[in-house]
Formats: sequence, structure tokens, C-alpha cells
Amino acid sequence: MTRPRGTDRRETIVQAAFEVIAERGYRGSSLGAVAERVGLTQQGVMHYFPSKEQLLMAVLERRDQWDLMGFSRSEDSSSLGAAHLQQLVEYNATRPGSVQAYTVLAADSVTEGHPARPFFQERYTRVRAWVADLMERQEGELPSGLTAEQLAPIVIAVIDGLQLQWLLDPDEVDMPESFRDFLAVLGIKV
Amino acid sequence: MTRPRGTDRRETIVQAAFEVIAERGYRGSSLGAVAERVGLTQQGVMHYFPSKEQLLMAVLERRDQWDLMGFSRSEDSSSLGAAHLQQLVEYNATRPGSVQAYTVLAADSVTEGHPARPFFQERYTRVRAWVADLMERQEGELPSGLTAEQLAPIVIAVIDGLQLQWLLDPDEVDMPESFRDFLAVLGIKV
Repeated sequence: MTRPRGTDRRETIVQAAFEVIAERGYRGSSLGAVAERVGLTQQGVMHYFPSKEQLLMAVLERRDQWDLMGFSRSEDSSSLGAAHLQQLVEYNATRPGSVQAYTVLAADSVTEGHPARPFFQERYTRVRAWVADLMERQEGELPSGLTAEQLAPIVIAVIDGLQLQWLLDPDEVDMPESFRDFLAVLGIKV
Repeated sequence: MTRPRGTDRRETIVQAAFEVIAERGYRGSSLGAVAERVGLTQQGVMHYFPSKEQLLMAVLERRDQWDLMGFSRSEDSSSLGAAHLQQLVEYNATRPGSVQAYTVLAADSVTEGHPARPFFQERYTRVRAWVADLMERQEGELPSGLTAEQLAPIVIAVIDGLQLQWLLDPDEVDMPESFRDFLAVLGIKV
């Protein structure tokens, strides 16, 4: 078991917390379980993250560096449009652990007094605006007769909902293929 | 606090467990919390449900009596088709507690060794077949050029995904309206 120092150790703890939450959900996770995974005492973890809530927020922020927004910033903005969303879904299909953690945490956040609720509420507002913007950039008319703002929550729902079905039954549900089918319904070929 | 007997008491316990799970998620729930809500001792609850897993399965089976399948059986089969799904989404919009419990449990079931995983895996396979059948019954051609089997996982994803966004932000996301928009994308007016 390696015991990196400072920033590295912080990073290692967040990564371990991410894995523990993906496996057990937020309420099933504990600072003790995270400590065990990185070979520290619980006190050692609490030196960096004094509470389970603070560790959760660090996990959510870190995950967002890899996800929708981070992914979009890493690309040439000229490639924006629906093809970009297809790439995102294909990227997600290569990292089931991350998708699992996201699915569990997002759903968990709707329960009473969950510390991540404001995070997800604000995040979905932001992502709806981002997807509406992508849809606007789509070349030609949106064929469905809906505005980009009307399409945005539907597009996000398809991405989230397919993730759940794919996580439960990866042999039955081909997530990238189904998303491609959905874009075809919108009249978009990628 | 009423203390009904036999079947009634069983019923009361399942209802209380349902509420506790909706509020805290499965892993945050306990037989003790359920017992407290119905005014029984934990031993009293365990007389009916010897384990938390058994109580969970009773909750899932009970909920399914109210949901997609139960809802469909209660209707005149001649009214089947996409309009039926719109009615279901409108019905769901009147019962956020039930939708919340479903959202949390379905997502939770993807975590390692969760007792409800086989239930949800089997349920989604069944619901995909049911929705494909509804889509087949839709009058006229499916305008999108996809088969009913290709559409089914997408339709279910939209329903599940909109539920999450609506639970997080009911003022921002009009779930029945967005589902109607989605059906319009499919070329279906309801």
C-alpha cells in the first residue's frame, strides 16, 4: 500500500472515496471504509476531510472534471453539436465505475436533507443550458419542431436513463447504439 | 398510533418501510426506523419480516402493483399506445413520494451485491417488452424509422431520466409537458 504525501494523498483519498461510493452508495459509505482502502487511519483521512460530507463534495467536484463539462472543454469547440454528445456516451461506456457512482449519487441526492442535493440541482440547471446550446449549434433546423430549450431535458433524460438500464444489464442494452438511435429520431445522423 | 392486526399490520409495515426508504434510501433505512414509524418494537416488525431484505422485496412488489404494469392492467386495452404512457407520466407527477422511492432504489440496485438488483434487472427486461408492445400498437407507422424494440429502451430512459430532473427541480422541469414534447418528436400527438 503506497502512502503518498500532501496533494497526492488527498488525491488518493478522493479516488478511494469515489470507489467506495460507487460500490455502496453514499449512505452505505464511511470514512473508516475509505481509510482502510488507502491504508490510513480514520484520523488520517479526517486530517484532509474532517467530515463525510466534505469528502463527498470533493468526490463530486473531481468527477465533474472528467465529465460532461470537462469533456466539452477538452474538445475543439468547432466540433460541438449532437456528435459531441454521442462521443460523450461512448466515452461513458468505457468507464462503468464512474457512471455507477454518478447514477447512485444523483438518485440518492433526492432523499431528504441529502448534502449533495444543491450540487445536483445546480448541476442539472447548468447542463440543461449547455445541452440547449449544443442543440442550437446543430447544423440545420432541429427537425422535431421543438426548441433547443425543450429538447435539452429530454436529451439529458435519455443519457441518464440509458445509463441505468446499461448498468443493470450491459448485455441487453447497448448504450451507445441506443443513443445513436435516439439522435436518429431527432433526425440527426452521427 | 393505530396498531392494526394480521394482514392490515403487514400492510402498515410495508407502507411505513416504503416511506422510510423514499426518505433515506435503502442503505440508510433500518428495521428499527420502520418499527418506530408504526409504533411497534423491532421484534414486532421482524415477526412479519425477519430481515431488511425481505421487507425490501415486499416494498418492491407492492409498489409494482401501483405502477407501470398495474396501471396498464387497470385500463381498457383498446386505449393502449403512446397515450397510455402519457397518462402514466401524468399519474406519476401526482405522487412524488412513490417516484422518489423508485428512483433511489433502482439506482441503488446497481451497487455491489444489492439484494434488489435481480428484481430491477428482470423488471426492466419485462418493461422494455411491454413498451415495445405498446409502440407496436401505436396507430400508423412509427415515424422515426426505428423498430418498436429499438424505441423501447429510449422511451423508458426518457421516463426515468425526467423523473430524476423533476424530483430535483419541480419548478424548472415540467415532467408531463416534457414527455409530451418527446412524443411529439416521435411524431405522436397525445
